[in-house]
Amino acid sequence: MARLRPKPKSTPDDLAFGVHACEQALRQGVAKRLLHAEGASNRRVAALVEEATNQALPVEAVEPERLDELTGGGVHQGVLVRLRRLPAASIPRKATAPSLALVLDGVTDPQNTGAVLRVAVATGAEVVVLPPRRGVALTPGVHRASAGLSFLAPVAAPQNLARALAQLKEAGYWVVAASPGEGAEDATGFDWPDCTALVLGGEERGVSRLLNETSDFRVQLPMDSRVESLNVGVACGALAYLWRARWPART
Amino acid sequence: MARLRPKPKSTPDDLAFGVHACEQALRQGVAKRLLHAEGASNRRVAALVEEATNQALPVEAVEPERLDELTGGGVHQGVLVRLRRLPAASIPRKATAPSLALVLDGVTDPQNTGAVLRVAVATGAEVVVLPPRRGVALTPGVHRASAGLSFLAPVAAPQNLARALAQLKEAGYWVVAASPGEGAEDATGFDWPDCTALVLGGEERGVSRLLNETSDFRVQLPMDSRVESLNVGVACGALAYLWRARWPART
Repeated sequence: MARLRPKPKSTPDDLAFGVHACEQALRQGVAKRLLHAEGASNRRVAALVEEATNQALPVEAVEPERLDELTGGGVHQGVLVRLRRLPAASIPRKATAPSLALVLDGVTDPQNTGAVLRVAVATGAEVVVLPPRRGVALTPGVHRASAGLSFLAPVAAPQNLARALAQLKEAGYWVVAASPGEGAEDATGFDWPDCTALVLGGEERGVSRLLNETSDFRVQLPMDSRVESLNVGVACGALAYLWRARWPART
Repeated sequence: MARLRPKPKSTPDDLAFGVHACEQALRQGVAKRLLHAEGASNRRVAALVEEATNQALPVEAVEPERLDELTGGGVHQGVLVRLRRLPAASIPRKATAPSLALVLDGVTDPQNTGAVLRVAVATGAEVVVLPPRRGVALTPGVHRASAGLSFLAPVAAPQNLARALAQLKEAGYWVVAASPGEGAEDATGFDWPDCTALVLGGEERGVSRLLNETSDFRVQLPMDSRVESLNVGVACGALAYLWRARWPART
């Protein structure tokens, strides 16, 4: 993904850009100010300006270059919002079956994190455990990549992942690490627990050894040996829906 | 995803860039020339230069700017290869169960096409039907997004998608359109046919009406009503592995 220019240090973290992300931020009541490119005549941006005005939020028309600058050259589509402090979810004290928790261990690519959050909301995950990096769990790139579903996802951002897993076990979750290799069960034939905490590893290193050792099960998607791995978001989609196939939502 | 600059008209289609894509192109014997950034000292690029030399391919050190130009500002990591004409797969005349075919109807985003090709190779899909756009089925962006698995995927690129579906039916495939809405079955509870041609629609419009009407079944992934859709690559991963869960690979 080429950037227009190196991300300047001043790029703030408390913003969302692009039509979808801004739409969701406004809908979820987490926007506190809207900036849009002056002179542009985009119908969808105009609708966002109207919504922000209805919410009595400050609205500012700025030069498009200002948006480029604030988003570090992101595809902002002429609109961004500054965000209030986002509410954090907490790890449930007691799982109510069926229940899925997603745990990200070292996933750093915003595209992947965004894709996981979309899957989380789609499958009704109870919580997404996402350790903060440099103090921040959700970045503008993640909001963008999730099409703003990051504002709907129940994100918990604990510093200590091992402790978070212990809490999930305490609450009644079985910890299932998506971690290929010897001893891993075939995810398509796996007898998924009704309360599953699915641990997904980062792009390069996968699930860390500590978390692998802490997990109750390890699973892998069966795949052609010439394929090193799937993208984390794609793997998360496949695994979450395999769990869902075993434990349909109560309706 | 911001580009470094607008893609110049002269950007050629017969190339792959980035370490993974070049690696696979060389491994599959479809590279005919390698260009690398002069002066760079990247160990993985050096290995590619060595491999190209072993294959008696022309190798050229060029200024990095030349690579930026040829890739239209893509993330080339200092290396690209020019490609031979890629071999095209054909639609099987007779399906051998279990068998999965993937059919892309209007998917235009290279990230999504690349993700689908990774899933195709991972799940051992028999064929991926991918209609060409402006005469080209696989672009440099798709090679990159698929991490070079595009060179392993059995891609058929027919002009006429409806005819391709008719051929798949003739060969014994049941056509299953991933197409939400009334009449669509829950993909997690669906009794997947052993020979499935799974039709995936584009980012904006989904599966076209004609192909929906031609299909034998329509399925949808159950999801929270606040989620419009999943990314096509993620949906493909979930659906292909739900099929695989019903029809494990023969070992």
